[in-house]
Amino acid sequence: MNAATTETPDAGLKVRRLGIDTYLEPVVFMRSDCHICRSEGFEARSRLKVHVGDKAIIATLNVVHNHLLANDEIGLSESAWDMLTPAAGSLAYFSHPNPLDSLRHVRAKIYGQRLDELALRAVVEDIVGGRYSNTHLAAFIAACGGDHLDRGEIVGLTRAMVEAGDRLSWGGAIVMDKHCIGGIPGNRTTLIVVPIAAAFGLTMPKTSSRAITSPAGTADTMETLAPVVLTPEQMRGVVEREGACIVWGGAVRLSPADDILIRVERQLELDSEGQMVASVLSKKVAAGSNHVLIDLPVGPTAKVRSPEAAWHLAAVFEGVGREMGLSIRSIITDGSQPVGRGIGPALEARDVLAVLQGEPDAPRDLREHALLLAGQLLEQSGRETRGEGRRTAEKILDTGAAWAKFQALCEAQGGMREPPVAPHRHDITAEKNGMVTEIHNRRVALTAKLAGAPDAPAAGVEMHVKVGDPVKRGQPLFTLHAEAKGELSYALDHFRRQPDLIQIVEGD
Amino acid sequence: MNAATTETPDAGLKVRRLGIDTYLEPVVFMRSDCHICRSEGFEARSRLKVHVGDKAIIATLNVVHNHLLANDEIGLSESAWDMLTPAAGSLAYFSHPNPLDSLRHVRAKIYGQRLDELALRAVVEDIVGGRYSNTHLAAFIAACGGDHLDRGEIVGLTRAMVEAGDRLSWGGAIVMDKHCIGGIPGNRTTLIVVPIAAAFGLTMPKTSSRAITSPAGTADTMETLAPVVLTPEQMRGVVEREGACIVWGGAVRLSPADDILIRVERQLELDSEGQMVASVLSKKVAAGSNHVLIDLPVGPTAKVRSPEAAWHLAAVFEGVGREMGLSIRSIITDGSQPVGRGIGPALEARDVLAVLQGEPDAPRDLREHALLLAGQLLEQSGRETRGEGRRTAEKILDTGAAWAKFQALCEAQGGMREPPVAPHRHDITAEKNGMVTEIHNRRVALTAKLAGAPDAPAAGVEMHVKVGDPVKRGQPLFTLHAEAKGELSYALDHFRRQPDLIQIVEGD
Repeated sequence: MNAATTETPDAGLKVRRLGIDTYLEPVVFMRSDCHICRSEGFEARSRLKVHVGDKAIIATLNVVHNHLLANDEIGLSESAWDMLTPAAGSLAYFSHPNPLDSLRHVRAKIYGQRLDELALRAVVEDIVGGRYSNTHLAAFIAACGGDHLDRGEIVGLTRAMVEAGDRLSWGGAIVMDKHCIGGIPGNRTTLIVVPIAAAFGLTMPKTSSRAITSPAGTADTMETLAPVVLTPEQMRGVVEREGACIVWGGAVRLSPADDILIRVERQLELDSEGQMVASVLSKKVAAGSNHVLIDLPVGPTAKVRSPEAAWHLAAVFEGVGREMGLSIRSIITDGSQPVGRGIGPALEARDVLAVLQGEPDAPRDLREHALLLAGQLLEQSGRETRGEGRRTAEKILDTGAAWAKFQALCEAQGGMREPPVAPHRHDITAEKNGMVTEIHNRRVALTAKLAGAPDAPAAGVEMHVKVGDPVKRGQPLFTLHAEAKGELSYALDHFRRQPDLIQIVEGD
Repeated sequence: MNAATTETPDAGLKVRRLGIDTYLEPVVFMRSDCHICRSEGFEARSRLKVHVGDKAIIATLNVVHNHLLANDEIGLSESAWDMLTPAAGSLAYFSHPNPLDSLRHVRAKIYGQRLDELALRAVVEDIVGGRYSNTHLAAFIAACGGDHLDRGEIVGLTRAMVEAGDRLSWGGAIVMDKHCIGGIPGNRTTLIVVPIAAAFGLTMPKTSSRAITSPAGTADTMETLAPVVLTPEQMRGVVEREGACIVWGGAVRLSPADDILIRVERQLELDSEGQMVASVLSKKVAAGSNHVLIDLPVGPTAKVRSPEAAWHLAAVFEGVGREMGLSIRSIITDGSQPVGRGIGPALEARDVLAVLQGEPDAPRDLREHALLLAGQLLEQSGRETRGEGRRTAEKILDTGAAWAKFQALCEAQGGMREPPVAPHRHDITAEKNGMVTEIHNRRVALTAKLAGAPDAPAAGVEMHVKVGDPVKRGQPLFTLHAEAKGELSYALDHFRRQPDLIQIVEGD
C-alpha cells in the first residue's frame, strides 16, 4: 500500500511559566483557538509531546478558553517547567505521543496473565519516561496488587526497576542495609542502627523513603535533623568519610520508578506484597547493598497481622533476594503497639536523640528494638560472633560511640539541626480510671496524619501511655501537635468521631 | 477521653473563573501564601471540599506560586465552575473532605475479596458524588477488570448503578432495547433497527453511549444527523410522539456512574466483562426497558473472538438480566470485518442514510445485519410470529416506512441535519494485484481514531474493499478523512509504520 509523504505543522508557541503546581504530573496550558490546538486537533486531557530545545516530555493538556494566555503562548506547570528548563523566549513544538504500547501488558495482567521480564521492563521504562498518567499508574498498581504477582514476576519487576535507574557500587565491600516493613508508628530504629553499624566499622549507605501511607518515613524524620537530599556524589563523599549515611533515596535516582509508583500508592492507600518486595529490594540492589536485614513487626493492627503472614513474606523476600544476589535475614518483632513516644517526623527525631544520648527517660522499647536489630546486623555481616551482636551493639550505644557517629554523619550530610516544635498542642485525657489494654497502630497513625504529619514535620501525636499502664481519670493519654490551627481542629474533630484509638478497661 | 471543642477557620475566598478546561475532574487553584492554604495546611494535589452557597464539591487543588491570582481569590476550572455555578462576587469556603471510606472496598477487591451490594453501593455513590479522583477510578476499574466480578457482584454493581441515577418508566408497556457489544467498525445498525421497530408499532426509547475505545459510538453517529443531548422531559415527548428516540444516555442521568467510569476506561482502553454487563444493563433498566436484544459479533479481530466466548458472555447477560427483571435475547453475528463502508461518525451516518433510503449501492452487509436484528427484535416482542420477523422488517424498510419514521424521529429530536464532510482526504492504494484475505477490525478502528474520530465527526476511514474482493495495483483500498491537516498526517505516519490493516495475497 502506498501513502504520499505529508508535512506536519511546524510553528512553535512561546513558553510561559504559569506558576501552577500540579505536583509530579506535568501539565501544559494552551488556548483552544491557538493554531496548534486547531491544526493538531488536541483537546482537553489529551496527552501530548512537548519539545523545547533538545528536551521533550509527555504532558497532559488543559485547554484554556479565555485570555489567561496569548494565542501564541503555551503555559507550563511547575513540573513541566522543571523538566524542560526552557531559556527565556524559548519556543515549544508539539507532536502526538506514540500510542502507549506497554499498556497492553497492564491489560494482560488485569486479565490474569503472567508478565515476563520484557513486558515488565517495557512498563517500567514508560513509567520512568513519564509516559504513564496517574490513571495508567493506578491501573498498573491495582493490576499487580493483592497477590497477583508470582515469585518470578516479582523478580522481573525488581530487575526492571533496578535497570531503569542509576546504580551505586562500593568496590566489593560488605555493604549492609536494613528495612522495616512498617505499619508501626514511631518505629524509627534506622537512625540508631546505622550509627551503631558504622561505629562498629561496617559500610551502610542507607537510602530511605519518605512516608507512603504513614505519618513519617525515615527520610522525613532524618530531615528534621540533617539534610537528606544529596546528589550521588555527595552521598559517596559522606559514606567514604563516615562509612555510612542516611539520605532520601528519591534524590539519588535509585529505582526512580518506585518514587513515581509510591505517590499513586499513597493516594490509593495501597501497598501490596509484590510491589512492596520489588520496591524494597530494587532500592537495595541499586544502592549497591549485598546484605539486607528485614524487620517484620507483627501485631493485630500492624501491616503484618500474624506470624504465618510474616514467615510467608520473609520467604518471598529471601527468595527474590537470592535471585537478585542479596543475602537476606528476616526478623519478626513485636508490632502490637507504637514504638517510642513520638509519631511524626520531629517527635520521632526527639525519641531517637534521647536514645542516642543515653537519657534516663529515653523510650525503652525504641532502645531495645534498635539494639535487637543492630545485634542481628553485626552478626549477619560475619564480623561478629553469633550470639555476641546485641552485647556489642549495646556497648557501642552506651559508650556514646553511636551518638558521636550520628553527629558526624549529620555534619557530613550538611550540618546537624534542631527538630522543629509545633506551635499548636492539645492534650487528650483519660475519661476514667483503669488500665490501657490496646493501642491501635493505624488509628494513631491516622490521627498523626490528620494533624499534618509528615508534610508538617513538627506535627503528630505524642503518646504518654503504653499497653498495660494503669491510668487515672484526667491523666493525659496523648498530646496532639500541629503546625496549623486548622489541622489541629481537623485531627480533633476526627478523634471526637472515632475516639477508640486507645482502649481502657475500667478499674481502680 | 475528652477533647475541648475548637473552631475551624471561617474566612472565604473570592471565586474567579480561570477558563481552564480540566475535563470532568474539577480543579481549584489557590495561592500558596493565601490564608486558607496556610491555616488548613492544604498542599498541591490535596483533595478538598469547596462550598459556594448551598453547593459543595470535592476538587483537586493546584497550588499557584505567582501572581495569577490575588491571595484572597480562588480560581475554578471550567468543570468546577459548572458544578458550583457561583453568582458574581461569591465567596468559597473550604473543608477537608471526609476520608474516602469506600476505598477500602476497592482495596478488598484488589485482594480478591467478594464485594456485597452494600459495598458496591458505597463505591458507586462516592463515584457519582464526584469523590473519586481519576486515580481512584482507575484502581476500581482495574480491580473489577478481567473476570474479577462473579455473577452476584455484577448484579450488585448493576443495581447500585441503576439506583445512583434517575429512572424512566413507560406505564407498563413492552419496551424494547438493543445493544451491540461492539468492536466492529461501522456496525451502526441501531439507526436502522429503531425506526423499523417504531414503524412496526413498538416502543423503543433508545439511549446510546458515545465511543469508549472505538472511533464512533451510536450517539456520536446519530449526532451528525440530529440533536442527541435531550432532557428526560424532551426524550419523553419524542417517545410519546414517535414511539422511539435515539439519544445520548449521558444527558438523561441514567446510570451516571457509567459515564464517569467510561471516560477512565477509555484512557485505559479497558472494557471488561463484569463492568461491561453492569454498564449495559444498568442503562437498560434505568431507561425502563424490559426486552433487550444483545448483538454479539464474533471474529478473530472483534471484541469477542470465539463462539464459546460469545455463549459465555450471552449467559452472563441473560443471568444478570433475569435478576434485574429483563428478558434478554442474544444473537451471535459475523464480526470478521468492518460492516458498511464508513468508519467515523459522519461516514457511518452516510451508510445508514443509504440503507434507509434504499439506494442501490447501499452497503449490503449493513442492510443484512440490521434486518437480521430487527427481525429478531420484532419476534422477541411477542407481536410477530416466530420466523416472520425478518420478512416483516424487510417490508418496513423497503416500503420507505422506516425512512419516514427515521426522519420523523430526527425532527422530533430537534431537526434533521446533514452530516459534515471532511476537508482533508487521502487515498491509500493497493501495492500489488491480488485478493483481500483479511481486514483487521482494531487496526482499522485505530487508524480512524488517529484521523480524529470521534471528536472530529467528519473524520475516519472510508473502506473501498471487503474480504474476498480481487484488487489491482493502484486501486484505492480506503480513503482517510480528517478535519485537521495535523491529524491526517498523524494517521498517515502511523499507517506507514503499521501498514498491515488489510491483508492482500498476491495473484492475478
